[in-house]
Amino acid sequence: MLGSFKIRGALHAVHQILPQARHTGVVAFSSGNHGQAVAYAAKVFGVSATVVMPTTAPRTKVDAVRALGATVELVSPEDRDHYPMRLVERTGAAFVHPFDSRAVIAGHASLGRELVEQVPELATVFVPVSGGGLISGVATAVKALRPTARVIGAEPALAGDAAESFRSGRLVRWPEKDTYRTVADGLRAASLGKLPWQHIRSLVDDIVTVTDEEIVDALRQLTVGAKQIVEPSGAVAVAAALHGRVRWSDGGPAVAILSGGNIDPALAADILAR
Amino acid sequence: MLGSFKIRGALHAVHQILPQARHTGVVAFSSGNHGQAVAYAAKVFGVSATVVMPTTAPRTKVDAVRALGATVELVSPEDRDHYPMRLVERTGAAFVHPFDSRAVIAGHASLGRELVEQVPELATVFVPVSGGGLISGVATAVKALRPTARVIGAEPALAGDAAESFRSGRLVRWPEKDTYRTVADGLRAASLGKLPWQHIRSLVDDIVTVTDEEIVDALRQLTVGAKQIVEPSGAVAVAAALHGRVRWSDGGPAVAILSGGNIDPALAADILAR
Repeated sequence: MLGSFKIRGALHAVHQILPQARHTGVVAFSSGNHGQAVAYAAKVFGVSATVVMPTTAPRTKVDAVRALGATVELVSPEDRDHYPMRLVERTGAAFVHPFDSRAVIAGHASLGRELVEQVPELATVFVPVSGGGLISGVATAVKALRPTARVIGAEPALAGDAAESFRSGRLVRWPEKDTYRTVADGLRAASLGKLPWQHIRSLVDDIVTVTDEEIVDALRQLTVGAKQIVEPSGAVAVAAALHGRVRWSDGGPAVAILSGGNIDPALAADILAR
Repeated sequence: MLGSFKIRGALHAVHQILPQARHTGVVAFSSGNHGQAVAYAAKVFGVSATVVMPTTAPRTKVDAVRALGATVELVSPEDRDHYPMRLVERTGAAFVHPFDSRAVIAGHASLGRELVEQVPELATVFVPVSGGGLISGVATAVKALRPTARVIGAEPALAGDAAESFRSGRLVRWPEKDTYRTVADGLRAASLGKLPWQHIRSLVDDIVTVTDEEIVDALRQLTVGAKQIVEPSGAVAVAAALHGRVRWSDGGPAVAILSGGNIDPALAADILAR
């Protein structure tokens, strides 16, 4: 219903902190899917939510969060890190981080578990990578239930900090002005979270990058061929399977995770019209 | 894979006539999904197929049929009824009618059976109507397995011959210049088939019409909300549920069948950009 995987982590995280959250409410910072997910989870559990959003967020996303009953506070993008923390300090509210959180990662692990249940012979799974919460959860579940399966991260080359971290063995951060170039607007985190980085180092087999052209091609193939609307970030794993330098077609079932479908209709129209 | 329900009827029909088809091949007339479905079924069973298509058919559809290994013969639209019959007489090939066929209807009945298996408490099902093959099969299976469920046909008002037949109790035919006005290009049959008409009279509860604006609205809601690409004909049942004058929301599970997704990407782009 919310159109992205983020609801898995948000529901589990809000549930975990429910005794506190009932008193103080929850706070999230997000320009997109995580904000909607936390607002929805708060509504499910009957707690109040404040979602801090950048003033640059599209009006439709702001409206969607408000429609779920959350309070929206708009801040300038340069205050994105500090403002939510100050809000948490001032109000005592519980902060739900989009990826650097054990509870969020554990919620996303449900996706990996369902995947192995549905594809018991799983050989390869491609997972979009941004802050690293999704792939951390998926890798934890998949490696526990199906240790022979390979877990491959997929990242836009224009926001390829995770692939660089993976290759170099140290957690790197890219300037945001660089990561914000990619069309995959959900994968612009400038760095992996610290917890995801630990998961990825020990559990993930590789992280591959794809160009924006390959992402758009995958998105178009998904739309025209598979009749499935995805957002650019949600098509990155398919782009990696189609265009990445990973052998998988002769090695058993391979799955690419479609992580979200909240594409701006105007962008979807533009891609379909090409 | 072929993007429409037609494969159900075509596979069953070609299988039923296989002893003959092995010798003579099969013939179909279609400007769209039925032609692809028969070409695919013929390929599955290793028989030759000729698909007669109007010269007005989009090039992409002609190419899709050829890519499945069938021979395409292009005829002017006014020869659409006569040419395939002459071809059948000349070659002795087996003709696979898109809807006026017991074997095709029986194939489509598999959809009704799966529906009741997946939604045992089914109360209402909305089904797109053109020649009537799909709703005949669905109604036969649903009424056998779940007699209390209502089966509602959905038709574009601009090609409303089936609704008129249903209300008047006699099989009417509309001029093709009228039925060709609707955006739902898969639902332009000028009349129900004779066999479907018998099924519909005895098994279907109602046939409702929707405007082209309501079809486009349903299509847009399916795309943006449900992340599902459908063709206009495939969205008609949802349009009937959303906009039709049928009460269903308080009566148990209701299902609207998405019958196809083969929309021209340019049309999908146009609708998304509105």
